Amino acid sequence: MKIAIIGAGMMGSALAFPARENGNDVRVVGTPLDNDIITGYKKTNKHPKFENAFPSGLKFYYFEQINEAVYGVDFIIGGVSSFGVDWFLNEVLMKIDPSIPVISVTKGLINLEDGTLISYPEYWERELAKHNITRDICAIGGPCTSYELAYHDQTEVAFCGKNPNTLKMIKKALATDYYHVSLTKDVIGLESAVALKNGYALAIAMTIGLCQRNNGMREDLHFNSQAGAFYQATKEMRKLLRLQGATEDCENMGIGDLYVTVYGGRTRLIGILLGQGLSYDEAVAKLDGVTLESLVVSRRVATALKVKAQKGIVDLKDFPMLMHVSEVLDDGKDATLPWESFTFEQV
Amino acid sequence: MKIAIIGAGMMGSALAFPARENGNDVRVVGTPLDNDIITGYKKTNKHPKFENAFPSGLKFYYFEQINEAVYGVDFIIGGVSSFGVDWFLNEVLMKIDPSIPVISVTKGLINLEDGTLISYPEYWERELAKHNITRDICAIGGPCTSYELAYHDQTEVAFCGKNPNTLKMIKKALATDYYHVSLTKDVIGLESAVALKNGYALAIAMTIGLCQRNNGMREDLHFNSQAGAFYQATKEMRKLLRLQGATEDCENMGIGDLYVTVYGGRTRLIGILLGQGLSYDEAVAKLDGVTLESLVVSRRVATALKVKAQKGIVDLKDFPMLMHVSEVLDDGKDATLPWESFTFEQV
Repeated sequence: MKIAIIGAGMMGSALAFPARENGNDVRVVGTPLDNDIITGYKKTNKHPKFENAFPSGLKFYYFEQINEAVYGVDFIIGGVSSFGVDWFLNEVLMKIDPSIPVISVTKGLINLEDGTLISYPEYWERELAKHNITRDICAIGGPCTSYELAYHDQTEVAFCGKNPNTLKMIKKALATDYYHVSLTKDVIGLESAVALKNGYALAIAMTIGLCQRNNGMREDLHFNSQAGAFYQATKEMRKLLRLQGATEDCENMGIGDLYVTVYGGRTRLIGILLGQGLSYDEAVAKLDGVTLESLVVSRRVATALKVKAQKGIVDLKDFPMLMHVSEVLDDGKDATLPWESFTFEQV
Repeated sequence: MKIAIIGAGMMGSALAFPARENGNDVRVVGTPLDNDIITGYKKTNKHPKFENAFPSGLKFYYFEQINEAVYGVDFIIGGVSSFGVDWFLNEVLMKIDPSIPVISVTKGLINLEDGTLISYPEYWERELAKHNITRDICAIGGPCTSYELAYHDQTEVAFCGKNPNTLKMIKKALATDYYHVSLTKDVIGLESAVALKNGYALAIAMTIGLCQRNNGMREDLHFNSQAGAFYQATKEMRKLLRLQGATEDCENMGIGDLYVTVYGGRTRLIGILLGQGLSYDEAVAKLDGVTLESLVVSRRVATALKVKAQKGIVDLKDFPMLMHVSEVLDDGKDATLPWESFTFEQV
């Protein structure tokens, strides 16, 4: 098959591994922000943060070559970050032949004023409908860090979408002996699972910094508190996912995704710094001031939940961990977790 | 309050920390196998595997002093391993005044011939009933490693039992600002959650060894596969716990317990060795030939499940990870996980 990956960030680039290793004709297209990355790929055939080089035979394109790159492709992989959602809408989804299916790796949710949380595929479909464009948009969820996928670590993910044939076609193109693909029609369930984990992974990572603050910098004696936080995160995520109408399989994918997020990337680092006692601004400054997607999503979920609470749909007391994260991020609250609020009495 | 802890193993000993720090009169009583441990405690006031010494004021007793030790206590903490279940029945539960409530930390399940899995409290109650003895037996579950509890890491657990007043009394005695206690009447649910996690923690730990076998001894690039296994473990555990009639809170405690078990102790070590390619016998030999409780429990659960499958109550295809663990332990199967069997198609 012919596949175009649009967005040369880490996750888009990582998908080039299974895509190309399956023998497909794979074209990696940078966004206008990715020009240097594409130049680097052309020179080295490697992402600087990946352990191994790309498989041979990939084709790299600058954004101005997009029409050449997507010509004749069977589907497009959307690899932009959540800050590129509107760019992707306007420059790709609106402009490229709508008969070409798209599968997106962008993770997040959008909170509407009424407290509803919708997925990016739904957001894009709503916006496209205003221009009378219909297109098939699928998405990828589940526990997968880009650099470990590139490293060929065994990975379980799910593809979601409305059209079973499209999902099966994309699975056929991408599934390998290390990239294992489930399929589901439950778009909002999978996308919610993927998005909701962010605030919880942050809270779990805080326990590491808290343990260092309270007990010294030992790295090895804080799994009780991590696991206690994981228990509470599971409890709250399941409640939130039920509100979103998620299937049980998507809940489980979300719990797996929570697990990998505690260990991967900058959400973990921010959580540890907050746990050590840094303020949100200090923690972000330590990470070069970059706004993390995961924190944006955490805030959106908390905002939506507060609207739902005002309407009497939820009781915020059922979500002490998410409310804690919200207060740490926005109200300068200390990261020490409200452990007693995680207990229950069913007697 | 006055509390006797019977069994001076790691978990019984760890509970002496919150018990004593709350100002109770705490007596630690060794089993006949614990004489050297008790002698050591009397000399050093410290467990060799714990980072910090016991709080001052604990009283230590050899088993022959048990009647003196339990005189006037408000409750007994049973701290034996699952290999001591019958010893505890015969030497403690049968002989000591049955009006003294007992709370047990022994983790496990017993499989009956018909495929039913019962908790130790239920097993003990059944055996005591044969002698017309009724006694109040509670149990402790949830994510808690002994050495981290002793280190005062924040810990979330649950106590289960039939009598709310007993549970509340024991919680009052043991809960501290680092030991957070939920209460539930769901004995079989909590005890099942605690027991079922063992086989799954083993499977998740296998991914670490598998990654080392396939990709070299790097320690840092195997969280996709761990998380993929965690997702499947969550899926199977939830199905098994539903069969056991567990409440959702106990399911969540079980998922937290799974998390801590992946990081703690010898189940992890055995899993890594199996993943690296060692046979079960070779892996056990590396750990001094000690039979692990966790493996005994895994086998019991697998055996019970096979009986249930013969009766048509379950389909073993829904439990590919547990069946894999069973075959690795007992049939010499290679540890490589059946990743494709973890996928689903809901389209």
